[in-house]
Amino acid sequence: MRLRLTPRDTTIIDLIVQAGNALVEGADLLQAVIRAQAGDRPDLLLKVRDAEHASDEIVHATMRKLNTTFVTPFDREDIYALSSALDDCMDNMEAAADMVVLANPAKLPDGVEIQLSVLQQQAAVTAAALPGLHTMKGLEEYWVEINRLENDADEAYRDMLAELFSGAYQPLELLKVREVIDALEDAADAFELVSHHVETIAVKES
Amino acid sequence: MRLRLTPRDTTIIDLIVQAGNALVEGADLLQAVIRAQAGDRPDLLLKVRDAEHASDEIVHATMRKLNTTFVTPFDREDIYALSSALDDCMDNMEAAADMVVLANPAKLPDGVEIQLSVLQQQAAVTAAALPGLHTMKGLEEYWVEINRLENDADEAYRDMLAELFSGAYQPLELLKVREVIDALEDAADAFELVSHHVETIAVKES
Amino acid sequence: MRLRLTPRDTTIIDLIVQAGNALVEGADLLQAVIRAQAGDRPDLLLKVRDAEHASDEIVHATMRKLNTTFVTPFDREDIYALSSALDDCMDNMEAAADMVVLANPAKLPDGVEIQLSVLQQQAAVTAAALPGLHTMKGLEEYWVEINRLENDADEAYRDMLAELFSGAYQPLELLKVREVIDALEDAADAFELVSHHVETIAVKES
Repeated sequence: MRLRLTPRDTTIIDLIVQAGNALVEGADLLQAVIRAQAGDRPDLLLKVRDAEHASDEIVHATMRKLNTTFVTPFDREDIYALSSALDDCMDNMEAAADMVVLANPAKLPDGVEIQLSVLQQQAAVTAAALPGLHTMKGLEEYWVEINRLENDADEAYRDMLAELFSGAYQPLELLKVREVIDALEDAADAFELVSHHVETIAVKES
Repeated sequence: MRLRLTPRDTTIIDLIVQAGNALVEGADLLQAVIRAQAGDRPDLLLKVRDAEHASDEIVHATMRKLNTTFVTPFDREDIYALSSALDDCMDNMEAAADMVVLANPAKLPDGVEIQLSVLQQQAAVTAAALPGLHTMKGLEEYWVEINRLENDADEAYRDMLAELFSGAYQPLELLKVREVIDALEDAADAFELVSHHVETIAVKES
Repeated sequence: MRLRLTPRDTTIIDLIVQAGNALVEGADLLQAVIRAQAGDRPDLLLKVRDAEHASDEIVHATMRKLNTTFVTPFDREDIYALSSALDDCMDNMEAAADMVVLANPAKLPDGVEIQLSVLQQQAAVTAAALPGLHTMKGLEEYWVEINRLENDADEAYRDMLAELFSGAYQPLELLKVREVIDALEDAADAFELVSHHVETIAVKES
């Protein structure tokens, strides 16, 4: 543990925590868009856009704070990377919501529900873990859990790929479904990247 | 602002500026390849390859300079990352030119012209902004503008995706067009990544 | 060359070397899976999974060592990045083996053999080069060679893409083959990323 010669300004950690909390709402909105009838999706998508803009605002506030703070709680570039990675989770969830509207597949395979549930759980454990950056406690359990969830998402994704390649889908419908499940898989990966950035910070602090 | 105890060697910034200028030519060549008739493309592609090799040379010169310079203007790894990111823009533009020859779609949607125009503008504002690394001035306007342009590219890309999934394309032609528009979208994203590396440097310098 | 005021613990480099050696076995197992008849692949895939778990164990051992070592041979984050990048090579080779089972294309194009051979050579030169981190010698030849191999892989990949888009494939079969050759191309790219992380370390040490 490094000695701290100056008190740390913890506003930046509060902004990181806020970004994590926003992801819980984002995951719920994504589920709502995907479960909705095609005709109801565009309206729900607007709410996802709002959540994404709110997430952008938090990143910008974090950057402004970084630019005006002399002693940061962690290395400046690690805070920057973590803040961007949290925003990437939101961007990826927005992209998934967007894609279901754009590609508009006739029917989504059941595994999509597993993907949505994993994203909700990833958002919840991320939001619960980030306040641990104040004390550097409880973080290892968090990234183990995120990794476990990501494995669940991977398994669901692989099963759906095998289904898509089984010959039961027409090429165009295959491509449409593929877009949506890929976007959801990317979102699960983005949560794992967040946990890696938290791990990087923890390694340096240890 | 950090105090500078030694004069900084600015040759490295000059090389970064040179890499930015090369992208302006790269974007023009890419436009020429894509607008050409299929039969004329292979010859034009050779010019893109030359531009890409020239860009590689600039990266290598930057690395050599980094290896032999004691006091660098910014953190060594940030210069390395920025130089690589500039080269990635060229690589991605070459990949797009390459792909139009490889996939050879029967017809490209109109939105491709928007993508090409965005890349030319991104190259122009990047080339105009990089000399600002000498004084750290005017950089914020640059990354706001790159972000705005990237949003234009995204919108054109999304509209074309919706068109591709509308049922108006045969699967093979859909896949061919998709390759080209994806490659162009990746190139626009690469320019945005450059602006993030410039932002990282600016955050550290502030 | 920086002056070393304390002796460096080189166990971490030994773990990095071990991770490199594991990739040689991984590349051989991948070749076995892809060359096998479809019915024999699932059993062989289990061996790839074992190799991948062994690689994960090495990463975790590296992280534990990083967390308990006061003076590391290189910057902590660079060791972390290099260790992760080596594991990504294994992950990408596992993903390729996995994909040939999932997508199960009727026939793979000849260029796949070139991709497999490149991966075996990349694994071999990586494993041979990593002990050079003890002395920082012979590393430049290594990354030049990795880059040359990656160019060979790219060429084979491009030729296969052109073949896929020639109209000789049905859309579903095209998509299946595409999955496999993309996964192999990603694995070759992952080896190149390893060489970039080694280069980053070498740039800092120089």
